Amino acid sequence: VTVKPLRYEDGALLLLDQTFLPGEERWLRCESAAEVGDGIERLAVRGAPAIGLAAAYALALEARRGGDVQAAAQLLAATRPTAVNLRWALDRALEHGSGPDELLAFAHSLAAAQFDQDQAIARHGAELIEPGSRVLTHCNTGALATGGAGTALGVIIASEPSHVWVDETRPLLQGARLTAWELEHAGVPFAVIVDAAAGAIMARGEVDAVVVGADRIAANGDVANKIGTYALAVLAAHHAIPFYVAAPLSTIDPATPTGAAIPIEERSPDEVLELAGRRISPAHASARNPAFDVTPAALVAGIACEREVIRAPYEDPISRLWNRTSTPA
Amino acid sequence: VTVKPLRYEDGALLLLDQTFLPGEERWLRCESAAEVGDGIERLAVRGAPAIGLAAAYALALEARRGGDVQAAAQLLAATRPTAVNLRWALDRALEHGSGPDELLAFAHSLAAAQFDQDQAIARHGAELIEPGSRVLTHCNTGALATGGAGTALGVIIASEPSHVWVDETRPLLQGARLTAWELEHAGVPFAVIVDAAAGAIMARGEVDAVVVGADRIAANGDVANKIGTYALAVLAAHHAIPFYVAAPLSTIDPATPTGAAIPIEERSPDEVLELAGRRISPAHASARNPAFDVTPAALVAGIACEREVIRAPYEDPISRLWNRTSTPA
Repeated sequence: VTVKPLRYEDGALLLLDQTFLPGEERWLRCESAAEVGDGIERLAVRGAPAIGLAAAYALALEARRGGDVQAAAQLLAATRPTAVNLRWALDRALEHGSGPDELLAFAHSLAAAQFDQDQAIARHGAELIEPGSRVLTHCNTGALATGGAGTALGVIIASEPSHVWVDETRPLLQGARLTAWELEHAGVPFAVIVDAAAGAIMARGEVDAVVVGADRIAANGDVANKIGTYALAVLAAHHAIPFYVAAPLSTIDPATPTGAAIPIEERSPDEVLELAGRRISPAHASARNPAFDVTPAALVAGIACEREVIRAPYEDPISRLWNRTSTPA
Repeated sequence: VTVKPLRYEDGALLLLDQTFLPGEERWLRCESAAEVGDGIERLAVRGAPAIGLAAAYALALEARRGGDVQAAAQLLAATRPTAVNLRWALDRALEHGSGPDELLAFAHSLAAAQFDQDQAIARHGAELIEPGSRVLTHCNTGALATGGAGTALGVIIASEPSHVWVDETRPLLQGARLTAWELEHAGVPFAVIVDAAAGAIMARGEVDAVVVGADRIAANGDVANKIGTYALAVLAAHHAIPFYVAAPLSTIDPATPTGAAIPIEERSPDEVLELAGRRISPAHASARNPAFDVTPAALVAGIACEREVIRAPYEDPISRLWNRTSTPA
């Protein structure tokens, strides 16, 4: 793992501003929870595990500067409603204490735990995929999204694929920008495609497996993930291609019974209507921009987490694993 | 119909350069087949019926300047391999003669015929859709694509929908740029979505019908159309939403037995890897950019052409209608 989305240094959290990647490596120095919250909201840091980690560090920063830690937690939790890791990390952090040293120690331990979890996820997930497969993925789920080896992209790289199809992932192009960048660094052969081409590539028989990450998994195994994931799951089912999810247990929310209860973040229409700051649609055009969608558990062939690969029916393994993992290692 | 993709004037073909829409209305003045061919190749004029019409005028221009009309026809036919209207129009033009007056008269008659066809397509197609429906479409199939009322977009507007979902249609954004522009002019409520959101919008129960155009329809009813169409057809089937195609008979090629025989144009990877001239992926990233895909006839609930709506099995109606329409009106 050569790339890190964030690091703690001299009383500040440094965030690699992913909105400038791959063109430019620009770091944001944050000294308050509000600054970190702003970075999360505008996706300077993104990926469910990475934003959970950033939020944990944000609480430590806030305590250090004598701010209101509880208020900071509320502010941070509101930045992105779909990803559950954010609230999970905030809750666990506050259980550990409210002083700067306790909160910083928690954030460091979370970073270490997530690093180990990613390696375990990659190991379990890679067993699902034959070496030399052609794997399709969506969005970015690599080191930039977690701080470790990544979730789905960690699985994919560990499975030694012959080729990776990278959905560009409109509107914000995390696939074309970030996944392509990580795969290039990892020396894995890949091709970027527009999201709308995935179905046709499957129909040509050129996809052996689909692996994606998750922003929240409900107690029944329904998966909220980047918009477009649901369509991939339907297309994979139509072509009898296995569709896998890779995520840490912290992405599973036993308090969310099904996908219907997952709030879907609706982001600004400008993300769709503008490109690189330039308007592409007519001035008064409107757009809808749901950032996530929900894939029913029935379309998910397996979920690789840090303990094992779980399979449908998901309720039992989720409840079993959660009983022993309500706090990080 | 207030917008025309091309017009013949003073011995030249004027093409509305659609690559600058909706921001700017720039017209290209073409006086040779090579100039028209260049405009077709770089999508200044696009849409299967419109490029057929542009090619017919291009032969007239070439004859007028004393050029080699047969060579011009070959050059034009090679510009875009998937859309069959192009070759159909060239063949019909050459049947009419090779002199400038005959070729110009043919082009004018084709323009008039396509205008009438579009109105008939819209009338037949609109009968498939309840007024007040929420209709999803892909790419641009309106006046800009045909010179008349459009194919799928003509059907949609004639059906008086309550709302149109406009797939932005990456990589070249014909939906976000052109369809949005035409719907705004027509006063029809719409929202642009990223292509990957179509499945999720269907799952929410917010789509009553999908209507798309075609670049070539095989003798068995398989439909080649803009990349992403096939995925929409699979998603529509999964949600029991009717999926319709609207196209003139000139888009049907009885000489192409099935979709497997349709050549799929592969365009430059830069269309995927760059946006507005700026690189979005790492410098050495590769991409695949198939411009079209093939939707099997089994997923098509009906094809609205200028004579009627045809239904599966498509072989019989296609062969019946083609026997009386091998030349335009």
